[in-house]
Amino acid sequence: MKYPFYKPAELNKSDLGHYLDGIIARRHYTNNGPLVEELQLKLERRLGVKNLLLVSSGTVALQIACKALQCEGDFYTTPLSFVASSSAFKWLGKKLNYSDIDPRSLNLDPFQLEKRYSSKLNSADVIVATHLYGHACDIDGFKGLQNRFGVKIIYDASHAIASSISGKSILSEGDISAFSLHATKLFHTVEGGGLVFKSRACYERARKMINFGIDQSGVISDIGINAKMSELHAAVGLSGLRTLADDVDKRSQLIDIYKAQLNSAKLSFIEPTDEGYVSSPSYMPIILESKKVRDALYDGLFAEGIGSKKYFEPLLSKSDLFADFQLSLPIAEQFDSRVLCLPLYVDLCPKDVCFICDAIKKLIGQISH
Amino acid sequence: MKYPFYKPAELNKSDLGHYLDGIIARRHYTNNGPLVEELQLKLERRLGVKNLLLVSSGTVALQIACKALQCEGDFYTTPLSFVASSSAFKWLGKKLNYSDIDPRSLNLDPFQLEKRYSSKLNSADVIVATHLYGHACDIDGFKGLQNRFGVKIIYDASHAIASSISGKSILSEGDISAFSLHATKLFHTVEGGGLVFKSRACYERARKMINFGIDQSGVISDIGINAKMSELHAAVGLSGLRTLADDVDKRSQLIDIYKAQLNSAKLSFIEPTDEGYVSSPSYMPIILESKKVRDALYDGLFAEGIGSKKYFEPLLSKSDLFADFQLSLPIAEQFDSRVLCLPLYVDLCPKDVCFICDAIKKLIGQISH
Repeated sequence: MKYPFYKPAELNKSDLGHYLDGIIARRHYTNNGPLVEELQLKLERRLGVKNLLLVSSGTVALQIACKALQCEGDFYTTPLSFVASSSAFKWLGKKLNYSDIDPRSLNLDPFQLEKRYSSKLNSADVIVATHLYGHACDIDGFKGLQNRFGVKIIYDASHAIASSISGKSILSEGDISAFSLHATKLFHTVEGGGLVFKSRACYERARKMINFGIDQSGVISDIGINAKMSELHAAVGLSGLRTLADDVDKRSQLIDIYKAQLNSAKLSFIEPTDEGYVSSPSYMPIILESKKVRDALYDGLFAEGIGSKKYFEPLLSKSDLFADFQLSLPIAEQFDSRVLCLPLYVDLCPKDVCFICDAIKKLIGQISH
Repeated sequence: MKYPFYKPAELNKSDLGHYLDGIIARRHYTNNGPLVEELQLKLERRLGVKNLLLVSSGTVALQIACKALQCEGDFYTTPLSFVASSSAFKWLGKKLNYSDIDPRSLNLDPFQLEKRYSSKLNSADVIVATHLYGHACDIDGFKGLQNRFGVKIIYDASHAIASSISGKSILSEGDISAFSLHATKLFHTVEGGGLVFKSRACYERARKMINFGIDQSGVISDIGINAKMSELHAAVGLSGLRTLADDVDKRSQLIDIYKAQLNSAKLSFIEPTDEGYVSSPSYMPIILESKKVRDALYDGLFAEGIGSKKYFEPLLSKSDLFADFQLSLPIAEQFDSRVLCLPLYVDLCPKDVCFICDAIKKLIGQISH
């Protein structure tokens, strides 16, 4: 494929070699080693957040969030997200309730959630909202729900590592923001994830949980698992941190080119819903006129050697693996079938993006006739 | 500390550098990459087993075992094991029932389990038995329970990677053998784990589960998580595989020296309960006369710069995190407080072991007077 949907950035051999030497010399390969500590500190500083904990995956980060908050009630979440946003909790036997999305951001809509579930929502419950494609959720709306019902808020910030609100990292929002650092992410540790906790006590509980619930005195004082990040994975993160700012710039520029080139095409973009919101350049989604056009465009691009993804179809709420019963979520159903994510990675050049945009415009023209 | 309890073997820099070059060139960092495939195949061949699946940790291996077997009933397990043998299932909300151990092997005793629980055991239930310190469980006894009650059998083989029965790897026993490949293990991938499945269908289900339940056609057809081993971790395993046979020999020789040197001391060893059983040289446990002697020996060794571990105290059944109620398990209670594990790793020389043994004999002599 000439332009795959995603191509992870090349790892820096000299950086990794240097870190590997240190790991071998120390013989400290995992269990909260110095590179994990260093990456945690550097990420906290870079993002301007506190209580950041690195773990072994984004999925386990969501599970840790749930356990650290001691969520015993129901989960309320978005139908439009990567499967892990739902499966992480179903794996633990939790009950999920889906609610519809905001047509502007495609994120879980606090207003509709309240309308649908106000008779049920209570302080044992938790809302899990994804900042889809890096676009911020309606933070104030969810704060309102928290104030009125006492629910906990977990944000799935897997697409939002570089998203901010009025200059402040979006990871500081919610009771917990959980995120993936998987190799397909803008910033990654090959496999990995992390959490940012509002409460220090909750952070401390989670820190214990990721090492089997064993506290500093060696006593098992909680039910935990092994969710530790290895030194090898932390080394990849430390190396990636050096290029993170450049990577964000480069991907943002590619998104700008996509938007300029596709401005006249019969499609639309998702924009931040507030002036103070800056979105992480994690994905390049476009919204087509209809499912028919979207599907034909996907096929047409594929035939020209351009990979794209119908992210995230089907809706999670459509699967009886996750939803106890089928419910109508008209906005999600309308958008889910019309979104297509385009190639976006640091190896793409402006002229590659122009080539892809030309193909899209040509194909949409053909499909429309 | 002159002799820590454990010192992981040095990683082979040239091997890892070679693998790292390949990983960087392929830009395939995780998601069932070629090194993971290679390690799976090589381990299957080395162990003479089929249906081996590598995952991200030993804890998640136990959870995958439980989910792949669709265990909906109660869990019956040993009180004497590393915490993960219990916490992996409690994390999933499962109910644990403890039963007493065999005084010869210190493993879960199928005879006592049947005596205690025969009125409850049924085909929805699962028995999780650890091959403690690498010593084989009473395989025939558990097969009998399976025949009579239809229960599923999961072995925690984290200590038993090199254990065998009549020349056959112990990993082929049970419905599933799950194991850890954590850095503290005889053979490791820094962080990692694996499973060997009796049933191919069950293996296929698990293979899907470790990638979010997504099947080969891209459809989410099961509830899964992310439990994939990365290429970096697989590289450590491939490198370690080259020295595995030598490492097993070396550690076995060290155990022989320990036993010869400590033969006249007031302590006992755990021996295989059957002539055909070969135990993985994973740990060097000794059983002292009393808790008083064990604890004094631990302190005395520590003062002389020798690390040891009271593995695995306290009994898991003593914690209300895991057990719904306290029950009497007299044999486990008797042994748990008398076991001490001694230093065992490939960097130890015969003369180091002799030094440690001299210290033990001297200390036991002093404690006894």
